Amino acid sequence: MEGLSHESCAMAGTLGLGKLIAFWDDNDISIDGHIGDWMEKGVPGRFKSYDWHVIPDVDGHDADAISAAIATAKSVTDKPTLICTRTVIGFGSPNLKGTHDCHGAPLGDDEIAATRKELGWTAAPFEIPSDVYAGWDHKEQGAADESSWDAKFEAYKTAFPAEAAEFIRRMSGELPANFAVEMDKFIAKTQDEMPNIASRKASQNAIEAMGPLLPEMFGGSADLTGSNLTNWSGTVKVTPENADGNYLSWGVREFGMAHMMNGMVLHGGFKVYGATFFMFMEFMRNALRMSSLMKIGTIYVYTHDSVGLGEDGPTHQPVEQLATMRVIPGFQTWRGCDAVESAVSWKVAMLRGDAPTALVFSRQTLTPMARTADQVANIERGGYVLKDCEGAPDIIFISTGSEVGLTVEAAAAMDANVRVVSMPSTCAFDTQDQAYKDSVLIPGVKRVAIEAGVDQSWYKYVGLDGATVCMKSFGESAPAVDLFKEFGFTVENVGK
Amino acid sequence: MEGLSHESCAMAGTLGLGKLIAFWDDNDISIDGHIGDWMEKGVPGRFKSYDWHVIPDVDGHDADAISAAIATAKSVTDKPTLICTRTVIGFGSPNLKGTHDCHGAPLGDDEIAATRKELGWTAAPFEIPSDVYAGWDHKEQGAADESSWDAKFEAYKTAFPAEAAEFIRRMSGELPANFAVEMDKFIAKTQDEMPNIASRKASQNAIEAMGPLLPEMFGGSADLTGSNLTNWSGTVKVTPENADGNYLSWGVREFGMAHMMNGMVLHGGFKVYGATFFMFMEFMRNALRMSSLMKIGTIYVYTHDSVGLGEDGPTHQPVEQLATMRVIPGFQTWRGCDAVESAVSWKVAMLRGDAPTALVFSRQTLTPMARTADQVANIERGGYVLKDCEGAPDIIFISTGSEVGLTVEAAAAMDANVRVVSMPSTCAFDTQDQAYKDSVLIPGVKRVAIEAGVDQSWYKYVGLDGATVCMKSFGESAPAVDLFKEFGFTVENVGK
Repeated sequence: MEGLSHESCAMAGTLGLGKLIAFWDDNDISIDGHIGDWMEKGVPGRFKSYDWHVIPDVDGHDADAISAAIATAKSVTDKPTLICTRTVIGFGSPNLKGTHDCHGAPLGDDEIAATRKELGWTAAPFEIPSDVYAGWDHKEQGAADESSWDAKFEAYKTAFPAEAAEFIRRMSGELPANFAVEMDKFIAKTQDEMPNIASRKASQNAIEAMGPLLPEMFGGSADLTGSNLTNWSGTVKVTPENADGNYLSWGVREFGMAHMMNGMVLHGGFKVYGATFFMFMEFMRNALRMSSLMKIGTIYVYTHDSVGLGEDGPTHQPVEQLATMRVIPGFQTWRGCDAVESAVSWKVAMLRGDAPTALVFSRQTLTPMARTADQVANIERGGYVLKDCEGAPDIIFISTGSEVGLTVEAAAAMDANVRVVSMPSTCAFDTQDQAYKDSVLIPGVKRVAIEAGVDQSWYKYVGLDGATVCMKSFGESAPAVDLFKEFGFTVENVGK
Repeated sequence: MEGLSHESCAMAGTLGLGKLIAFWDDNDISIDGHIGDWMEKGVPGRFKSYDWHVIPDVDGHDADAISAAIATAKSVTDKPTLICTRTVIGFGSPNLKGTHDCHGAPLGDDEIAATRKELGWTAAPFEIPSDVYAGWDHKEQGAADESSWDAKFEAYKTAFPAEAAEFIRRMSGELPANFAVEMDKFIAKTQDEMPNIASRKASQNAIEAMGPLLPEMFGGSADLTGSNLTNWSGTVKVTPENADGNYLSWGVREFGMAHMMNGMVLHGGFKVYGATFFMFMEFMRNALRMSSLMKIGTIYVYTHDSVGLGEDGPTHQPVEQLATMRVIPGFQTWRGCDAVESAVSWKVAMLRGDAPTALVFSRQTLTPMARTADQVANIERGGYVLKDCEGAPDIIFISTGSEVGLTVEAAAAMDANVRVVSMPSTCAFDTQDQAYKDSVLIPGVKRVAIEAGVDQSWYKYVGLDGATVCMKSFGESAPAVDLFKEFGFTVENVGK
């Protein structure tokens, strides 16, 4: 019934994933009762329409019938297989079988006794009869299979030592030894050149820089490649005919993409990123949370990150999304203010092997910022002093992404000592030690947060005495420059 | 491709919605290019599997063929119809037709000229030739249809004045005149009785009280009726055989349910609520946002609202969900601490005709709180003084839902003047005038927020000098009482 099944199963069928075998436990029951009133009868037809191989009408209580179905499924190598098994929920319980009453609640002592009788089961609770144990005991077989695999891999290692080392490196999730150094060079070069580009373009430049360093990098987009700018010169698309690629056009399937990305990361061997418009993160939030819960390094790329996307209007304009992503435990959200911060955010995301990251980029051009080498090094800390004043600051402006340029201008125009803190990642900043945090946000100094999103995340930094210049409503449909003015993101307004 | 289509279309087929006619604009193109590599070919089969009537192979550029298909679709009254139209994207553009290059970008002057030539189109831009205008001008027909409907309804009004008045009332979204008064009586009675129950049970009691008052009330659950407790003694399920009901088992389709609820509200005539576990709100967040953007009064019911749900474990335990719902502009989230606050939240939700509300309830039993009539009246303000101290408070505890009982205990055990503020809805509290807000949260007094969720929403109220007792990680799998202890929700810890 869940739409996610449609997104993932349709994709599996289109790509002809012949190794995938799924079982349908067709017992006619879901929690609200018999499913006839809310579930379609045509499941086999649905999977056929996805180009799956469908094995219907298997008795789910007949082990031999299931074994035979699995053998048939394995013999079909160009399509995934759905094995439809007819089952009775609560099988063996004479009074509750076939009803939703045995979905979530224990049977109770009387019904357990009756079930034992019906099934002819005499063993004590938790006692496994020896013939059953022997039937399921594959320890010996497992040990033999493992030895055989180990021997095979040892032989491979001897014949192809470099390839074997590379395989081990990729499967362990370890990055190439030169990755961080080469990325730092790219970041320094970007700082020197100060390109005046959208951060989505800066992201593409970073991907282009990382591509040759990371053969395990696997990209994709939910049907927005040309807008997300997630492809690069080395992009080879995976298609039904060619699995030997490094990029997937996932179609208009944000949630499915995210979960399939998680699946690839769990398999190992890949550094996986996938993209859509920031607004459509809403469709896939549960997958972000699951990445974090499972402690895996999936990378989510979101472009068109504010009302700055312009005329697509409020259905496409993220307003509350930064705040909602910042609260997922263990997750990091990054929103760079220019090409340099964007490149750093990519480096950080790749290095976070056991935790997911969202990289948020603009559609519109962002002004490049000048920085010392120390400032560049501090970007990774999530927040740092971008422009300081002479003497003690009267006020600290904190800003992210596309609003940093405006904030710097507003600070320069003010008749006060203003420090500007760029905070591309509140999540990363929160992990710094207190001394560093206090050196950036000096205790007792009034703060103002400026961000084209709702203000909920910012009270933690500005407190009850500070102020926020943030979004208070949904967007409107107009060019980016008009919208920024409409919503108060102007030098004059920030200066108030 | 989107999973939402699967959820909604499967439901439409199962319910046999014969009035629904959908068009598939089958042009082989999506933004990443030709869809063959990422979209299944079996769309007609998919809709047949949902028990739709499918009309394949219609020429989408042939108006007569489309008219004929619509006539056929209308003649099938027991199934929804999908009309599959083959089209060429950018039809008429000699160089761009059939490619994704004409999806989102203007054709450009040269190609516009070439297209005009190919189509033989000579009218000036924005000039509509009179024969085309006449062909589309249905003003006269429309006026006649409207008059005919008006006359019919006038006749109905004369014959059935009470029914006509009721129809007008329901379609306008106006509640019965006695609703607020009767609900206040129910709330006062609940305060008198102080039942010691879970707030999900309190919610069911409120639904039972509202049912006889609101014939327009339409409920449902995404396959969790028995857990959400969203049915009542007057519940009649809508089934494929009987549309004359007031409740739907939506199946395991949270996102689809939410959008179909929005559709019912937009149609008018119903006050619609639908339920699932709070965690599964993640699947439907976009629909919540759309309710708010469209300014409609959809009511979302969420039970099992914290780690208090117990053994289902962290995939089912909401931690960051309260914070993420509180940021949707125009949306209100309510989390009552006992049966009285829960009843008030239902009253508020029903009265919010043009804005959506989420009602969040516990699985576990909550201690009933004593209140004066004034305190009961202040619940609607979103936050109020539940237990005050003698003299000026040294500290203010702010809490919601299941943590309020614990907070009251902790305050009583403390060696200080502690005021306890119950804040079932930060969103509603934020709309109060400053004088009321200051009377509850006295400026300058240190505050502590206590809630079994992440702390992001609370810095706005506790500032940099306050404290929070909140969740900092995902849940764990254990009984509710053990989890509350594990995560620091104890009288001793709050007292620190």
